[in-house]
Amino acid sequence: MSDARTQNPGDPVGDDHAETYSFLGPAGTFTEAALAQVPQAQGKPWRAVNNVGEALDDVVSGRSVAAMIAIENSIEGGVSATQDALATMPGLRIIGEYLVPVGFVLVARPGVALADVKTVTAHPVAYAQCKAWLGEHLPAHDYVPASSNVTAATSLLETDASGRPAALADAAIAPPTIVAHHDVVVLAENIIDNPNAVTRFALVSRTTDIPKPTGADKTTLIVELPSDRSGTLVEMLEQFSTRGVNLSLIESRPIGDEFGRYRFVIDADGHVTDERVADALLGLFRFSPHINFLGSYPRADHQPVEYDHRYDDDVFIEARDWLRGLIGGEPQG
Amino acid sequence: MSDARTQNPGDPVGDDHAETYSFLGPAGTFTEAALAQVPQAQGKPWRAVNNVGEALDDVVSGRSVAAMIAIENSIEGGVSATQDALATMPGLRIIGEYLVPVGFVLVARPGVALADVKTVTAHPVAYAQCKAWLGEHLPAHDYVPASSNVTAATSLLETDASGRPAALADAAIAPPTIVAHHDVVVLAENIIDNPNAVTRFALVSRTTDIPKPTGADKTTLIVELPSDRSGTLVEMLEQFSTRGVNLSLIESRPIGDEFGRYRFVIDADGHVTDERVADALLGLFRFSPHINFLGSYPRADHQPVEYDHRYDDDVFIEARDWLRGLIGGEPQG
Amino acid sequence: MSDARTQNPGDPVGDDHAETYSFLGPAGTFTEAALAQVPQAQGKPWRAVNNVGEALDDVVSGRSVAAMIAIENSIEGGVSATQDALATMPGLRIIGEYLVPVGFVLVARPGVALADVKTVTAHPVAYAQCKAWLGEHLPAHDYVPASSNVTAATSLLETDASGRPAALADAAIAPPTIVAHHDVVVLAENIIDNPNAVTRFALVSRTTDIPKPTGADKTTLIVELPSDRSGTLVEMLEQFSTRGVNLSLIESRPIGDEFGRYRFVIDADGHVTDERVADALLGLFRFSPHINFLGSYPRADHQPVEYDHRYDDDVFIEARDWLRGLIGGEPQG
Amino acid sequence: MSDARTQNPGDPVGDDHAETYSFLGPAGTFTEAALAQVPQAQGKPWRAVNNVGEALDDVVSGRSVAAMIAIENSIEGGVSATQDALATMPGLRIIGEYLVPVGFVLVARPGVALADVKTVTAHPVAYAQCKAWLGEHLPAHDYVPASSNVTAATSLLETDASGRPAALADAAIAPPTIVAHHDVVVLAENIIDNPNAVTRFALVSRTTDIPKPTGADKTTLIVELPSDRSGTLVEMLEQFSTRGVNLSLIESRPIGDEFGRYRFVIDADGHVTDERVADALLGLFRFSPHINFLGSYPRADHQPVEYDHRYDDDVFIEARDWLRGLIGGEPQG
Repeated sequence: MSDARTQNPGDPVGDDHAETYSFLGPAGTFTEAALAQVPQAQGKPWRAVNNVGEALDDVVSGRSVAAMIAIENSIEGGVSATQDALATMPGLRIIGEYLVPVGFVLVARPGVALADVKTVTAHPVAYAQCKAWLGEHLPAHDYVPASSNVTAATSLLETDASGRPAALADAAIAPPTIVAHHDVVVLAENIIDNPNAVTRFALVSRTTDIPKPTGADKTTLIVELPSDRSGTLVEMLEQFSTRGVNLSLIESRPIGDEFGRYRFVIDADGHVTDERVADALLGLFRFSPHINFLGSYPRADHQPVEYDHRYDDDVFIEARDWLRGLIGGEPQG
Repeated sequence: MSDARTQNPGDPVGDDHAETYSFLGPAGTFTEAALAQVPQAQGKPWRAVNNVGEALDDVVSGRSVAAMIAIENSIEGGVSATQDALATMPGLRIIGEYLVPVGFVLVARPGVALADVKTVTAHPVAYAQCKAWLGEHLPAHDYVPASSNVTAATSLLETDASGRPAALADAAIAPPTIVAHHDVVVLAENIIDNPNAVTRFALVSRTTDIPKPTGADKTTLIVELPSDRSGTLVEMLEQFSTRGVNLSLIESRPIGDEFGRYRFVIDADGHVTDERVADALLGLFRFSPHINFLGSYPRADHQPVEYDHRYDDDVFIEARDWLRGLIGGEPQG
Repeated sequence: MSDARTQNPGDPVGDDHAETYSFLGPAGTFTEAALAQVPQAQGKPWRAVNNVGEALDDVVSGRSVAAMIAIENSIEGGVSATQDALATMPGLRIIGEYLVPVGFVLVARPGVALADVKTVTAHPVAYAQCKAWLGEHLPAHDYVPASSNVTAATSLLETDASGRPAALADAAIAPPTIVAHHDVVVLAENIIDNPNAVTRFALVSRTTDIPKPTGADKTTLIVELPSDRSGTLVEMLEQFSTRGVNLSLIESRPIGDEFGRYRFVIDADGHVTDERVADALLGLFRFSPHINFLGSYPRADHQPVEYDHRYDDDVFIEARDWLRGLIGGEPQG
Repeated sequence: MSDARTQNPGDPVGDDHAETYSFLGPAGTFTEAALAQVPQAQGKPWRAVNNVGEALDDVVSGRSVAAMIAIENSIEGGVSATQDALATMPGLRIIGEYLVPVGFVLVARPGVALADVKTVTAHPVAYAQCKAWLGEHLPAHDYVPASSNVTAATSLLETDASGRPAALADAAIAPPTIVAHHDVVVLAENIIDNPNAVTRFALVSRTTDIPKPTGADKTTLIVELPSDRSGTLVEMLEQFSTRGVNLSLIESRPIGDEFGRYRFVIDADGHVTDERVADALLGLFRFSPHINFLGSYPRADHQPVEYDHRYDDDVFIEARDWLRGLIGGEPQG
């Protein structure tokens, strides 16, 4: 790897591992681009790993202080795998959310032109996201799948014993950052079909300190239902809606011990110290046989949370004062 | 009236009015029977009034320490009138609930036999409740309505200037207690069609002290909806159902300022110091533009409140401890 | 009675009883004023009865073609009694709704002036509704309760054997129509405290023909809950809210077989032939162990029903067409 | 590939492509094992493709009659990608569901023993699922990621120009079926950490014929919410719960046009011709700005759907008969 900050899984780990940040490598991935957005990670050792499980394992074992993982709409790892890992590995907290625009370039060895390209290599998901461009510009190409969108590019540079290119492919689909790390040339830019594609990442740590509320926060929870009776899910969601808390994500995930039992991964608008969110969490705790708080943290898009003013902190405080007065024997206002 | 405890509306009121209990008179009504169940009213002056409005007015003005009023299934006053009065008169609290079995006897002047009865007098509701018996035993009778089931009986005893009976009626439908107060004879007992009829009464006071929880309590509320949009009522009731609180009574009452605006009279199972009831009240306070707490008090039937154990006080306390731990930075258990 | 149209309960009933209309008498009541609003009742025999039970009994037995009864905010009969009667007497339908402004005058025998009035007679509810006026203009009066607001007035005209007034009272609270029926003089007009008071009446019949939809309709139902579990009431109301149907009235009424079991009286906005109302009724039928349809009929206030356009008839029809297409094997649009 | 049935993407496609079945290749994948469970696919051409997008594209374009794709808990392709493809490609239907137990063996070239293994190759997800076994038996191994769990195994057999093994790895994690297709030897069996792991697959076609109901069916839908207001999701789910329909899967997926807009992928218990499911679909159609019916089909586990008998077909039919009678003027039973 050309990036001095980056360790590979096999690298010896020094004393500073408590400050290490893990990410899905190799260098040049969108996950690395997400980690580059984290101020506190600058100047610290970064550790490239092969998958989400390894990244979270680094955090749990203390090998790293935090890990950057893709959590939605990702081409670099399954959302499901991430969610299941977060649900089952104890002690993890999300402390930040980051967005990385997803874009691709078509790259080749120096000297290769677009007209020379007969075979393209790419991670299957990246390949699927560029099919319109490929259909137009390389209608007759063959395809060789690769295990990541960086290894696709680096494979172009491999040579056999005689020094000739070993790769079956002439060009690779890769993230634009690839040129900073590897000696490839760009044949075409912006080849992704959806120009607005964005991947969402989370920075995961073991800390139990909760980032301060900013007014533009998100709270992630994993909640089990007490039964699979029709209506139990509605009952769970009412814990949010009766407090005016919007959800931006909900996903059922099989618990895995038997078919038909589900846990839910939920992103709720707001911070655990917002009264309406705190009250919803109290309701969920009472409702659910198992609830896992994965953190409150600033939203990547910095959009202030919108909610009905009847769920303002003041209203919750006024309600408690009123009830305390009633029980204490004060006349009603 | 023959009962020495009882004052009539016109009676002079002594210094002890702070200890007076008002009830719908005259002596012998079911409301008086309800008041007779109240230990703290024994030996205190009782004041017979003509209707619920007067009874509550006595309490508000301080003329009486408390008033007994019918609140459900009553033949002695409209539930609606009671509910509207409680909703609009500030400072009132229900401190007890009482049940009185409703039964009727057919009474007459001494010397009159059942075979002599051509005309029957009764309060219209009492009359309606005895129609099956009357149809069988007095199929050809005429009917004269009376303003209460006690005045029906006492009218039989009135005489004109010459001492002859002044009443049009030969017999009256009256509560069984009538014989303790008036010189009438019973022609037939248990003439009510529904042998299980019961009237529910409330003892209303100005105190803001709430009777201690007994495990068999009821909480009465009056709640306005923020709008008449479809679904707002469901939203209000979810404040109870999401905390496992059952309702034993719900009635919409027009607010009266304009058609189409409603308040709701609600009896909820449990005491305001039960965690699940307290939490529902907090939710209602935040939801409703106006909520009126009318009291928590022991149920007349002494039936312990049944609820799902996931709404136990312990669960609420445990939830708060968990949330406090989260926010304070403790790891989850 | 001075009104030739009116029969009294004891009157012989002719062959035309199939066209008779029953109402709470005597002549001059607000209920009679409501009946006067019914075009098809004009020129037909009217039958004055003593209470709601008698009125409905006339309809059930075929003695009358229809009966006018007070159903809300009434001073002439309990709402509860009406609701319980409608719930338990089979075969009844509401075919119209009528509003009567409630107003009172103070009347006396000819020759009596306001300054002479020492004792006032009135139905207790009417008395309560005029307390502010009485407190101001007759602060020292005595009160004699009467069984109806018409009998209060007529009692003023009764004389004893010697031809002298027999009544204890000097003046009576009565509806303004009293002067058309009885030889009393008005001492004061508009003495009711709330100048906007209105009573709501229903015309009840045995017909199973449903009045045509007008766009300003109401549907009355009586629905039992399958259990008293917390949440069952919410589940019932969702049958309305998930179809955008507003309720203008909801009342719990004890079923009476045992304490704690309730039926609900419901007025829903809209007509049974409106798709959204019909669909809600289907849902209720499936949900409830017992549902009683009491009729769809034009609202007295002629206010068109407002509802979200996503519950338009067209949307229901389009949904059925879509589903039929799916099941029939058509591709989706 | 050694399996004569199987075409590769570049293979010429004959006239029988209307009978071709696409699956995620190469031969030996779990997806192929799922396809092997489909009776109607036996004896037809199978086409191995590189990813879910290609598989569905084959179906949409008519190149294949159906495609087998992983839809849950998969190590061979993201659930999210599948769901997004199904949501956005029109004309697709799920016609069957299949379960494949997931298990892994460790394989090597003939002659290699477990003690010789220094480097392991595997798809990252498969690698993660075997970490416990690897940690115990090969604690010091290096790891080389592969693009699929079959290519991991086949890479072991590649040789360079001189005929020596070209692979960096000595062993590969692969599905047990690998030995039927490739000349590798098994070093260890059952190396997966969770012995109950199962992957769920769907057979997707363009047909609009719906498989017949079996009593053990599932219905898949994609539904957009009309707004992201708190409570809209609850409102959507009530369309199911008010008809007693359980959900076995719910996932929010970003619509992708802008952040914060979501569609929901839903698996509901039951068949579109079950009355309760049909009624829920009608409600959803009216509620949602866009609903996509992806099919009703037999559940892979053949478990009969359990639901409350108050949602039986009979109850729906009885309700419609009752309503039809009401509107038609029949008296209520």
